[in-house]
Amino acid sequence: MKNIEMVICGLGGVGREFIHLLTERQTEIETKYKLRLRLTAAVDIGGAAINTTEIGLDCDALLSHIKGGLSIETFGKFGRPGLSGVDVIAESGAKVMIETTPTNLVDGGVAKGHVFTALENGMEVVSANKGPFVLFYDEVHNLAAKNNCGLHISAATAAALPTLDVGRICLAGTRLISVEGILNGTTNYILSEMCIKGTSYDEALNKAQEMGIAETNPSYDVEGKDTANKIVLICNRLFGTSKTLNDINIKGISKISLNDINEAKKAGKVIKLIGIAKKNGEQINLSVGPKFLNEDHPLSKVCGSEKAITYDTDTMGKITVMGGKSSQVGAAAALLKDLINAFV
Amino acid sequence: MKNIEMVICGLGGVGREFIHLLTERQTEIETKYKLRLRLTAAVDIGGAAINTTEIGLDCDALLSHIKGGLSIETFGKFGRPGLSGVDVIAESGAKVMIETTPTNLVDGGVAKGHVFTALENGMEVVSANKGPFVLFYDEVHNLAAKNNCGLHISAATAAALPTLDVGRICLAGTRLISVEGILNGTTNYILSEMCIKGTSYDEALNKAQEMGIAETNPSYDVEGKDTANKIVLICNRLFGTSKTLNDINIKGISKISLNDINEAKKAGKVIKLIGIAKKNGEQINLSVGPKFLNEDHPLSKVCGSEKAITYDTDTMGKITVMGGKSSQVGAAAALLKDLINAFV
Repeated sequence: MKNIEMVICGLGGVGREFIHLLTERQTEIETKYKLRLRLTAAVDIGGAAINTTEIGLDCDALLSHIKGGLSIETFGKFGRPGLSGVDVIAESGAKVMIETTPTNLVDGGVAKGHVFTALENGMEVVSANKGPFVLFYDEVHNLAAKNNCGLHISAATAAALPTLDVGRICLAGTRLISVEGILNGTTNYILSEMCIKGTSYDEALNKAQEMGIAETNPSYDVEGKDTANKIVLICNRLFGTSKTLNDINIKGISKISLNDINEAKKAGKVIKLIGIAKKNGEQINLSVGPKFLNEDHPLSKVCGSEKAITYDTDTMGKITVMGGKSSQVGAAAALLKDLINAFV
Repeated sequence: MKNIEMVICGLGGVGREFIHLLTERQTEIETKYKLRLRLTAAVDIGGAAINTTEIGLDCDALLSHIKGGLSIETFGKFGRPGLSGVDVIAESGAKVMIETTPTNLVDGGVAKGHVFTALENGMEVVSANKGPFVLFYDEVHNLAAKNNCGLHISAATAAALPTLDVGRICLAGTRLISVEGILNGTTNYILSEMCIKGTSYDEALNKAQEMGIAETNPSYDVEGKDTANKIVLICNRLFGTSKTLNDINIKGISKISLNDINEAKKAGKVIKLIGIAKKNGEQINLSVGPKFLNEDHPLSKVCGSEKAITYDTDTMGKITVMGGKSSQVGAAAALLKDLINAFV
């Protein structure tokens, strides 16, 4: 049995679901994977709760506390008002830092400090947050390599849809030619509605917003930025590159009309928003934009808010993975998966 | 750098492609995975070739030799006429046994001895051969566990289509509810032809035979036996069961008529040959047979000789993997993948 002490930063929906999975699955994780996962610190905006004894924090009690609207720093005798994530991580002596604060794509936000401090202290990093990886990939990657730490970012790269695992494990020993993905559920939902039901872009967007699939300000999704962030990370992890958002030509779907959709249909094609990383000699080319796919393309049949990714390899041919729950539980499950695989 | 000495048993198409990959990718495997893979013995019907020195067997020279129609036991000074696989494995001191002899589902054939001897000698087993695993799963599994050896049978469970990796790695920490697969390309080709082109079963089978997709005696495929073997192995590996072919109700597709296909179509459904392992309380139920799938089922859209598998989990929802080259190269690539992942 390995003892794994963890610090979690961020106690929003994904963080809470992750803590719930920890407590719900403790026995089966110990039995199946021989891992004793112990949460020794939890951090949010106002401070932290810490218990570095063998018992760790009581996850059930902690969840009741924060779900009751109380702040983490008032969690009984373990509460530490004002203590920052960086301080907690540096002092924790934990083996893993779980990062679930909201993604900040301007300067990385607090997550930047969390990730760098964890790596400086030799910890494994498991993150649902894209910010520090998209913005500072090279620095993060080099620091992790120098200190022999693993970076585990499944939850930041399509979460319950396995992308990096498949590329690294299932395709080991192949030569990867390209990765193409429908990596954003909102845009795929809108394009599917337009294609299948003949609704306009605006109608489809409104419906997506009503259903909670699209944000009130949908630009991050519909302008292709979310897809771009994911394909940059997938490219860097699978092709060993150091790409940034500056290396990618990004087009969204907000200018796609019903006419475009119908023209595509007439030509036997379907329009999908695709993120692509493709080998071209020694270069890897990146792009995000609406593509006209033939009906025999494996991504052409992926409809609704479903996501999918197609790998093209020399020896195994094309392999496509689709599905995976798009929810906070799905993201939390991706964190747990990475955590288990980091130590098994 | 880890030095990995290997014995290969079986020098048919898949074995040869595997040796070709070893020599072609030596540098990239050393660079990327820090593994120095060295073939120290190769065995076929008439004997073996052995070189346990640091150099190992020259893979290029060995391939030229056997592709020139010469037997392995006449491979220069390394040839050992009459030496059996079991003798070679026991004496080799190698870390891995690669099993690529033809599958024998009556008594396991020579592969049974190869697998047991390798495990008794503490070796990792990487196999494209289903026989010993389908027939003697419990004994093989227990011996491997006792001697702390890994069993790596991706190449025996749909090869380039990743099945076991996805179930074990990508879904770690989830609770698996069911696995459903189109695991046989021949039957999916026949059903797809009947559905899409309206040809009869016999016409579709003839075409598959002309194209080399179906064997002259197609019963192993069309009666569902191949699918049954694969789903039994997948079930045992992912659900931790000890199922045998006696635990599975097997129906093939040879009695499916064009009328059945058309009736299904009218009801908005499509007929596919599906292998299923499904949790039912504490039991796992297994079946193989033609199923009427709704059009929104992810396997309903898998056409031609393509294979696919759908996992249903509690926290990640449904995940489907499809594709993968159905060829000797694809099977060899699956062996290489398992080999790399066993040591990385």
